[in-house]
Amino acid sequence: MKLTILGCNSGVPRENSQTTSQIIEIGNSLFLIDCGEGTQNQIRKQKIKFSRIKQVFISHLHGDHFFGLIGLISSFRLLGRTSNLDIYGPKGIKEIITLQLKYSQSWTNYQITFHELSSLESELIYENDFIRVFTIPLKHRIYTNGFLFKEKKGLRKINIDMVNKYNISTSDFENLKKGKDLILDDENIINNELITLPPSKPMSYAFCSDTSYHEDLVDIITGVDVLYHESTFLNIHQELAKLTKHSTASDAAKIAKKSKIKNLILGHFSARYRDKKDFLNEARVHFENVELAEDGKIFIF
Amino acid sequence: MKLTILGCNSGVPRENSQTTSQIIEIGNSLFLIDCGEGTQNQIRKQKIKFSRIKQVFISHLHGDHFFGLIGLISSFRLLGRTSNLDIYGPKGIKEIITLQLKYSQSWTNYQITFHELSSLESELIYENDFIRVFTIPLKHRIYTNGFLFKEKKGLRKINIDMVNKYNISTSDFENLKKGKDLILDDENIINNELITLPPSKPMSYAFCSDTSYHEDLVDIITGVDVLYHESTFLNIHQELAKLTKHSTASDAAKIAKKSKIKNLILGHFSARYRDKKDFLNEARVHFENVELAEDGKIFIF
Repeated sequence: MKLTILGCNSGVPRENSQTTSQIIEIGNSLFLIDCGEGTQNQIRKQKIKFSRIKQVFISHLHGDHFFGLIGLISSFRLLGRTSNLDIYGPKGIKEIITLQLKYSQSWTNYQITFHELSSLESELIYENDFIRVFTIPLKHRIYTNGFLFKEKKGLRKINIDMVNKYNISTSDFENLKKGKDLILDDENIINNELITLPPSKPMSYAFCSDTSYHEDLVDIITGVDVLYHESTFLNIHQELAKLTKHSTASDAAKIAKKSKIKNLILGHFSARYRDKKDFLNEARVHFENVELAEDGKIFIF
Repeated sequence: MKLTILGCNSGVPRENSQTTSQIIEIGNSLFLIDCGEGTQNQIRKQKIKFSRIKQVFISHLHGDHFFGLIGLISSFRLLGRTSNLDIYGPKGIKEIITLQLKYSQSWTNYQITFHELSSLESELIYENDFIRVFTIPLKHRIYTNGFLFKEKKGLRKINIDMVNKYNISTSDFENLKKGKDLILDDENIINNELITLPPSKPMSYAFCSDTSYHEDLVDIITGVDVLYHESTFLNIHQELAKLTKHSTASDAAKIAKKSKIKNLILGHFSARYRDKKDFLNEARVHFENVELAEDGKIFIF
């Protein structure tokens, strides 16, 4: 998996730090999560082709998470997109987008399908051959979901050494990868495990922003490889975090620890803090493997 | 007057060229015209204080002219604005903005007054002690207005040399500036023109984007000091200009010539052209005083 942070500032975009948006790339698929104002420029900066974006997941309808969506949709149209776009987001997103398309008389010449979310329980919302995407209900001032990307168990791998030994034909590869035994010409059976290697371990990524400290997350994200958790505030503004239903760096790290995840990425920083290292220091009291999000930063896992 | 170009690209924002937005500063007042995506970042780059923006004029509801407005409004709120904001724009703008504020449950703690425009005739829409703003009905695919900023005739200026000669008190200055004669203690009357100088010539600025070639403009903008006129295309794409109801550089220059304006600024360039000098060359065939808009460029007049 490859995670590209396009923006991780909370509230107000600044010259060199944009509001929330990121791209998670899994196999050949690429998913856009949230779309703050200016996201299309951030995507260009990363030299990511617009046409590769086919699914967009919007966590909630605060502006710093979706004000860039209408611009992206319009640019897709102006640049001649023809392939479908699927948008997953809270109820209301369809009305907001279509109202603007109506007044501008700029209907897209590609199909947009809105998948409006309203469930308070985690649900499977997207699936392809390689991954499943589940919602992670969060606790914020308005209806908000995080998103859990789980790779499916992959296929077994052919052990090249055995291909020569047993003179295996490439036409058998597909069945072998699926775990079937090999039947030789003399009708002898070779056990699958002798000629294949186990599949790579499926990876998982959880995006949780925005949310207050919310232990209900733990059940859903237990054991994920990477968790992006918002930490708008530091401990000195703990009361403000509670009031605005955001998290501190400590909150995020406590959730990471309880969920036994492997790596934590902090983001959605309030612009009031000059030195982002304080977020690291506060989080590391509770959880060791922490990194900070930053515009343009890429995480490979 | 001071004109700051924040963006002058048409359609799609690019990394170093944003969509339409500009600020015209007249006396102590500052007016935002159009507000493409990312305008708030452009305002920051120019080190212009957000609190100085009190009136916003939106030409039409194509995204490259207003997608940044909701973000600007939200940032005003997050940064603690309390003063009123007046928005002048086509019918529909109120519905678009309030729908997004409703879903985000982020009502502003300052008052926004929407002045929705629907007239097909030029009308006076704003006035203060120093200027008047009129609409300029344009001819585009959807309802669109340009805006004409006309300084009022200024006050006469006190001739400092005469202040000493006649021992004029500062308490008389206001009446003298308004053109009244001076009555001396011995009841002699000194003619105003002897002790004051004529006011500066009132300046005028016309913003016309987006529009096809439209001679009806001429009557409204005749004699203005500066005209910003869109020139999305060059002559080689004349047919495309007609089809999309945009102008070529020649169209803009012809309007400038017929209107006997003093200076023409071209903008709203299609991203298809690498070398913007071709716009200058085409326009200068018809009108000499032409300049090209460019992000961050400032025109003083």
